Amino acid sequence: MREELIRLRNEMEKAGVSLYIACDCDDHLSEYVDDYYKSMKFVSGFTGGDGTLVVTMDEAALWTDGRYFIQAAIELKDSGIELMKMGEPDCPDMYEWISEKLPKSSAIGFDGRCIPANMTERIEGKIPGISFISADLVGRIWDDRPAKTQNPVMVLKDWQTGRTVSEKLKDIRDELSKRGADSTVISACDDIAWTLNMRGSDIAYNPVFASFLIIDTETATLFITGEHLTGEAMDHLAEAGVRVENDTEKVYEAAGRLSGRVLVEKEMTSYEMLNCIRAEKVFGLGAAARLKNFKNATEMDNIRKAQIEDSIAVTRYMYFFKHELLMGNVLTECTAAARLHELRTERTGFNGESFPTISAYGENAAMCHYEPDESRDVVVEERGLYLCDSGGHYDCGTTDITRTWACGPLTDEERKAYTLVAIGNLRLAAAVFPRGTAAITLDYAARKPLWDNGMNFNHGTGHGVGYILNVHERPAGIRYRSTAYDCFNVMDEGVYVSDEPGYYAEGKFGIRLENMLLCVNNGGMCGFETVTFVPFDSECIDVSLMSDEDIRLYNEYHSAVYEKIVPHLCGAEREWLKEATAPIARF
Amino acid sequence: MREELIRLRNEMEKAGVSLYIACDCDDHLSEYVDDYYKSMKFVSGFTGGDGTLVVTMDEAALWTDGRYFIQAAIELKDSGIELMKMGEPDCPDMYEWISEKLPKSSAIGFDGRCIPANMTERIEGKIPGISFISADLVGRIWDDRPAKTQNPVMVLKDWQTGRTVSEKLKDIRDELSKRGADSTVISACDDIAWTLNMRGSDIAYNPVFASFLIIDTETATLFITGEHLTGEAMDHLAEAGVRVENDTEKVYEAAGRLSGRVLVEKEMTSYEMLNCIRAEKVFGLGAAARLKNFKNATEMDNIRKAQIEDSIAVTRYMYFFKHELLMGNVLTECTAAARLHELRTERTGFNGESFPTISAYGENAAMCHYEPDESRDVVVEERGLYLCDSGGHYDCGTTDITRTWACGPLTDEERKAYTLVAIGNLRLAAAVFPRGTAAITLDYAARKPLWDNGMNFNHGTGHGVGYILNVHERPAGIRYRSTAYDCFNVMDEGVYVSDEPGYYAEGKFGIRLENMLLCVNNGGMCGFETVTFVPFDSECIDVSLMSDEDIRLYNEYHSAVYEKIVPHLCGAEREWLKEATAPIARF
Repeated sequence: MREELIRLRNEMEKAGVSLYIACDCDDHLSEYVDDYYKSMKFVSGFTGGDGTLVVTMDEAALWTDGRYFIQAAIELKDSGIELMKMGEPDCPDMYEWISEKLPKSSAIGFDGRCIPANMTERIEGKIPGISFISADLVGRIWDDRPAKTQNPVMVLKDWQTGRTVSEKLKDIRDELSKRGADSTVISACDDIAWTLNMRGSDIAYNPVFASFLIIDTETATLFITGEHLTGEAMDHLAEAGVRVENDTEKVYEAAGRLSGRVLVEKEMTSYEMLNCIRAEKVFGLGAAARLKNFKNATEMDNIRKAQIEDSIAVTRYMYFFKHELLMGNVLTECTAAARLHELRTERTGFNGESFPTISAYGENAAMCHYEPDESRDVVVEERGLYLCDSGGHYDCGTTDITRTWACGPLTDEERKAYTLVAIGNLRLAAAVFPRGTAAITLDYAARKPLWDNGMNFNHGTGHGVGYILNVHERPAGIRYRSTAYDCFNVMDEGVYVSDEPGYYAEGKFGIRLENMLLCVNNGGMCGFETVTFVPFDSECIDVSLMSDEDIRLYNEYHSAVYEKIVPHLCGAEREWLKEATAPIARF
Repeated sequence: MREELIRLRNEMEKAGVSLYIACDCDDHLSEYVDDYYKSMKFVSGFTGGDGTLVVTMDEAALWTDGRYFIQAAIELKDSGIELMKMGEPDCPDMYEWISEKLPKSSAIGFDGRCIPANMTERIEGKIPGISFISADLVGRIWDDRPAKTQNPVMVLKDWQTGRTVSEKLKDIRDELSKRGADSTVISACDDIAWTLNMRGSDIAYNPVFASFLIIDTETATLFITGEHLTGEAMDHLAEAGVRVENDTEKVYEAAGRLSGRVLVEKEMTSYEMLNCIRAEKVFGLGAAARLKNFKNATEMDNIRKAQIEDSIAVTRYMYFFKHELLMGNVLTECTAAARLHELRTERTGFNGESFPTISAYGENAAMCHYEPDESRDVVVEERGLYLCDSGGHYDCGTTDITRTWACGPLTDEERKAYTLVAIGNLRLAAAVFPRGTAAITLDYAARKPLWDNGMNFNHGTGHGVGYILNVHERPAGIRYRSTAYDCFNVMDEGVYVSDEPGYYAEGKFGIRLENMLLCVNNGGMCGFETVTFVPFDSECIDVSLMSDEDIRLYNEYHSAVYEKIVPHLCGAEREWLKEATAPIARF
């Protein structure tokens, strides 16, 4: 059993807490968090990006989703913590479990600034009258806890934003009025960065800065520790009439002073923040989040440019990888990923990866969010499939792309799965639909080829991507299960969403093919513009599984890849691309 | 301008109301209502099944959806009431309109027992601090108002229900506990009928009885006026421990006395009922509604039988119709519908239509909920399309079916639209998907053939159907726009839903093809079992628009129709069915 679990239980006893909840949450409920906030990881040893640890005096369990089942099973072995596989039929509901395990008339503990308000509400739903003790018990046992990161904030240029801060504040106030609210408290760092046309680097991979923003009908106040702001940033904020409060602690008092009606996004507000707001609340997706979901014309144009840069890097990487194998050179998951990083570094405006590169050979690719590890690096063999999921931040946008390709001979199972995934990817990209279509309606286009064969994959088909921002952006998403965001998750011009069906055979292989799509409205109906231009691997395709229309879509895409990318290549790369994008046909 | 509008404004002035809302709602928020409750119809003259009338001192507007645009435009002509076409891009949001038109610090009036609580809440969201005056002003000007209907209640047999009232009450209490509630107030008459295994006839087409039901952890109380209950019904209720309160007025006091947490379905609870409940509320789909959405094995078996009976009647009707035309006999919308009624009357266990039959020739079929009218009956000509949407209540289930067929030569536009609608119908029925798939994900299967051609239709692709109950049953539905029910509208064994894509060309023709589907779980994945067996019209099909798979699905369905129905036909009908279901092929 883990030492940290024993020490946490000691603190629980002292604090009078019978059950403690730890998640890797910060006070902004960010997806990626500064190491300072990784309490779940500290206690459990599980390093996956998403999970919730619940500890009682004699049991402990960790809930995580399909992306992390395999990784979590390995990391939680002998920890004294049971793995709960969310979405599996026999997985107990976390809230049910809590209500069953909690001794009568005892209290639940957690760090109230770092837990989503809707989580504590669901607990209250299950256990009416439950009392909560908000205390950072993990902090008390965390001797070498890392310091909080604070880096300077950067101001975007006009050519990057397409809309000034003053204009965005007006848009947000209009949205608040439409929703019957007078003000809003924004905890989500990406919403703040978008609103203020500024970016930071406080969190790995997410170009945001730790802060809070309160907007009412007259004023806008940014709560941020003083060391973040350069003179340029101060001038920029002053020009838009945004006041600066140099102590983030003060946001809780300020939220408490709001009157009228306050728009609150429960999913992105902490227990403590929600309790601070005493005024009447209107619940729903944040106003800035709703607006930034539809990229403006400047953002769309820049995204197209960023995608060309990124597609050149990844296409060259595919050539490099295939060529090394052909030459008989040794490639490992880590050395390959390092080469991809170099190729991105050569591109105009590249500022860093948008998330940790997944470079996974063979069975490792079946772990959806696998990260290669230098200490146990894996050599690529001349058979089976290699999967690479990566993305970049550019001066003109954020990218996300996954390709899977053959390293040598494939099994029939691999070829069939690859072909069905490719068909799903292309059919979703080709969908035509009216404005306002619920995004989850479109998931069928991507999954039908797999479902018809009794196959499926355990993650969303698509997620929103930010503009020079987080690689996962709410509310956009293409999936087949309903969520709280459904009514805001509608398709219209400017939605920027990934198209990434996959298939995972545990212990054998993993396949995912991901392009980024921009929703465009061509007069009457909407459709998608695919903005990623990197070949699929025709060596993996079983043409007999494709309809004529599938073959047409496949060849059309490859022809576009060739046209867009070949001008940026030279010599052998050009020749290879011509071959790699040559039309396929039924025999 | 309508006289009724002028008189209503007089009453508004007396009552101190600046804006009055009238909808054809009863105190159970039923879809079909007793004539007593049709205030919107009384004031506006619009006879469509769904609409909301808003009247100010100098303006009046009526919101209705795509099914009724054409009908409403005709009926509202010169009424002084503006038609608001919901879903059209330029249609003002009703709540926006109300907040714009309402004079400062004035009151909104309505009959609080006959208005959905979520409607008044949305108004409060738009106009914080608004005051409401609950008063039935329409009642004050309605001199010859019809009396309320009260018919005796019938008890279902065990072979019909598959589950006793005691078992259902236990299931409901389990569901309440899962949702964190101790009790529930049920206003929805179909939920009450299902729970108590009883049926009534107080409302046209819906076999329910006007009543309320309160269930807590220990007791269940039915509020119903005494004249409804036969001795058999009293014994049946006593056996299950259900108490009877013979004064429906008392339900409001009883709701007010509830303590603990009360599950309330806001969409099916009136403003006044919601305000009566002083205990803490848990909002969401009603517990009985959630359970009855998944038909049990007995219900599914009976539904299959009811569907065979109904399919025989409609198949024979199609033969009759085509034969009459061939013989050169005169057919009208009304005489044809009368023949269909006769054919249903001959079937075992038929108890009446489940909604008014839509029998529509030519351009009339473009009005989705058109009803033929004897006073201006329409003769069927020997060209174009005829559409018939109808359904029956049987001792063993409720049906709903639409067929469209050729009366003579068709235009290319008609043939193309018919073929695309047929393809959509068959593809949805053939869908394969995991348990728990959001129903709206599947809508893409039905709409893709139309969307790919820049076409669409302005109603849901599917709605839930009750078992010996209402032909429209929540929460099931297949559509591409998000609603409040999405998180409960998931697919699993026993969901009974219609599959009815269509296409409507205003002033020209209308097409709809509707089969009923039962969701079945064949081991790993779910799929649909089509339970309606009536031919499509191969004369309307343009095979060149179909894929090989579409042709296979079409022929497979026709072969099943022949097999199931031919044993019940004789002579010329048999010959005709053989021809009508003969395989189609590409030339």
